[in-house]
Amino acid sequence: MIHDFVFHNPTKIIFGVGKEEKIGKELASRGHRKTLLVYGQESVRRSGLLSRVQQNLAAHGVDFIEHGGVVSNPLLSHTQAGVDLARREHVDSVLAVGGGSVVDEAKAIAVGAKLDGELWDCFLGNAPIRSALPIFDILTIAATGSEMNGNSVILNERKQQKYAISSPYCYPTVSILNPALTCSVPADYTAYSAVDAIAHVIEAYFTQEVGGNLQNRLVESIIKTVIETTDTIMADPNHLGARSEFMWTATLALNGVTTAGVSGFSFPNHLLEHSLSALYRIAHGAGLAIIIPAWMKWHLPQWESQYQRFAREVFGVNDSLSGVQSLEAWFKKIGAPTRLADAGIPASEIPTIVANISDAAQVWGLANVYTPEVITQILQFANEQ
Amino acid sequence: MIHDFVFHNPTKIIFGVGKEEKIGKELASRGHRKTLLVYGQESVRRSGLLSRVQQNLAAHGVDFIEHGGVVSNPLLSHTQAGVDLARREHVDSVLAVGGGSVVDEAKAIAVGAKLDGELWDCFLGNAPIRSALPIFDILTIAATGSEMNGNSVILNERKQQKYAISSPYCYPTVSILNPALTCSVPADYTAYSAVDAIAHVIEAYFTQEVGGNLQNRLVESIIKTVIETTDTIMADPNHLGARSEFMWTATLALNGVTTAGVSGFSFPNHLLEHSLSALYRIAHGAGLAIIIPAWMKWHLPQWESQYQRFAREVFGVNDSLSGVQSLEAWFKKIGAPTRLADAGIPASEIPTIVANISDAAQVWGLANVYTPEVITQILQFANEQ
Repeated sequence: MIHDFVFHNPTKIIFGVGKEEKIGKELASRGHRKTLLVYGQESVRRSGLLSRVQQNLAAHGVDFIEHGGVVSNPLLSHTQAGVDLARREHVDSVLAVGGGSVVDEAKAIAVGAKLDGELWDCFLGNAPIRSALPIFDILTIAATGSEMNGNSVILNERKQQKYAISSPYCYPTVSILNPALTCSVPADYTAYSAVDAIAHVIEAYFTQEVGGNLQNRLVESIIKTVIETTDTIMADPNHLGARSEFMWTATLALNGVTTAGVSGFSFPNHLLEHSLSALYRIAHGAGLAIIIPAWMKWHLPQWESQYQRFAREVFGVNDSLSGVQSLEAWFKKIGAPTRLADAGIPASEIPTIVANISDAAQVWGLANVYTPEVITQILQFANEQ
Repeated sequence: MIHDFVFHNPTKIIFGVGKEEKIGKELASRGHRKTLLVYGQESVRRSGLLSRVQQNLAAHGVDFIEHGGVVSNPLLSHTQAGVDLARREHVDSVLAVGGGSVVDEAKAIAVGAKLDGELWDCFLGNAPIRSALPIFDILTIAATGSEMNGNSVILNERKQQKYAISSPYCYPTVSILNPALTCSVPADYTAYSAVDAIAHVIEAYFTQEVGGNLQNRLVESIIKTVIETTDTIMADPNHLGARSEFMWTATLALNGVTTAGVSGFSFPNHLLEHSLSALYRIAHGAGLAIIIPAWMKWHLPQWESQYQRFAREVFGVNDSLSGVQSLEAWFKKIGAPTRLADAGIPASEIPTIVANISDAAQVWGLANVYTPEVITQILQFANEQ
């Protein structure tokens, strides 16, 4: 049964090598004249991408104000500085050049710039989002799917809270995906990206009766393609075919297509992981590689048949636990951590993590299932060797 | 390799039983005050759907002018009457209530109402489409995918030409999909719908190197789901689960997701079929069930490996021809014609059909491949017993 749903994803995707040259025209043709250029570290400057983008904007009469220095697990304080800058300079749009963290911070700035109130209240679910500046991006890392959805995840470093917003106003107007830009993503972040893309489709697949076999098949198609292309990339990082296929697959993994018709699903792996990256600043995908196998082992008895399906369709193995173990072994193979200790987190930290997750579970509306006892059990799976 | 592409599908889908009650609000909230209500035969009146929609429009202050009587293979003359009515009455939008033919005619009216010139010139590729009235629809038959793409196919009955337009202006603003409305679709049209949905994904799958395994997998997922759900519906026409899964699958089959990253594909089965329905007014899906197996047999030697993949992944058989035969056998099983004679078309008509297709092939830009000789060969496969 396909459950009731609304699907509305208006983001325009421009995909291909060199397509960043389209950005000036896309902004100018929509009447934008001054944009906040959001980026991360110096790599986009060193690679020459930033100056190419700036020249292209200038050629189309689009002025820009730089807001660089976004970090992985983007920080509320830096986001707030971007909001202040956007307001002071009266920009009419935001343009992210970078990976998912840069896009996420750009979205939060876009919301904050139009908000009358505290931005973090939106992340706490206490303030509605009623508008945002139009969002554009040039993606340099394929992983989060932020380029084609309305989500943004920000870390409030003072409170050690890593929370999300999701709003129709946060869909990018235009996202430019040039797979050649992702060829320089190093092996570790390539692995984390693969884990993240798998996490996005695995959540609904295992947390609710899927809407139909179509949805199951779409998810399995995405996971198999992520595994296949990542294996190719690990052997040959400059393989443009695999990089491009991985890039579009990661977008489809969280643009609403796989969850349309699936009702009542949730994102428990993301709930659990966000506390790891909030507390220890590890990469989101690295944290997910630790959380997913543990969560799957804990969750398995609740839905044996879907785990059997997963084992059979994705890994060609017959029993449900073997499917989980195959996924875990693949995470290890590509160099992702699969235990807390692999990320340097000692067992003595478990109570701290449990407390952080328990607070978040309230905000996510998942506290009824993810009690401190349950979270502890899952983290123990993530701790055992 | 994923080839360069632009994906931009802004249609809002509202899916679920009873969701037609949303239509007045969707129109009114966008400022529409007077719409052209396009529908087909009396069944939508008899079922009570039309009066429910009219009451809902009235409750939201949206006036309407009726344009009923759209037929399967919608006619240019009737479309032109709709254009004249839309202009005379100064409607600000069009609302289709019906199946793919009704949506297609509504799109053509939306284009014609804003056009300075002859509508058919757009279908001949001789006049650009620069605007259209906003298009809304409530879908009663799942098949064509028109509810989430920019295509419209119209029959010029005077010239016996069945041609298409494709324009960004022809994406519906909002499409409402209520799977319960499709439970009354009779067995023959259910079969034709299944063939049509399969045809939409099979075209790119077999006419060009697919962009990557992801695209292959998405297509196979859709075909397997169409087969599975149609078999269920044939046994139990009121099976809402299967009707709903079929409905969304048919939408995904032609909304651009399966072809993103696939370059240079074409729609030869549609080219060939349109002449059958133009000349003999048979249902489009019925014509496709005749054309597809014939075209596949002719095309098979050119791309053996993809046919082997199709055979293995969709039907679990090993050789390429068996895959084609399995599909043909399934068409027969669900009651679709698979030979010209099954549709009452004698072999003596082949030259007439070839001439009609040859003219169309010029307009479609496929005349270099689909010469009269090739078309004749394919039609001979469609004729042999």
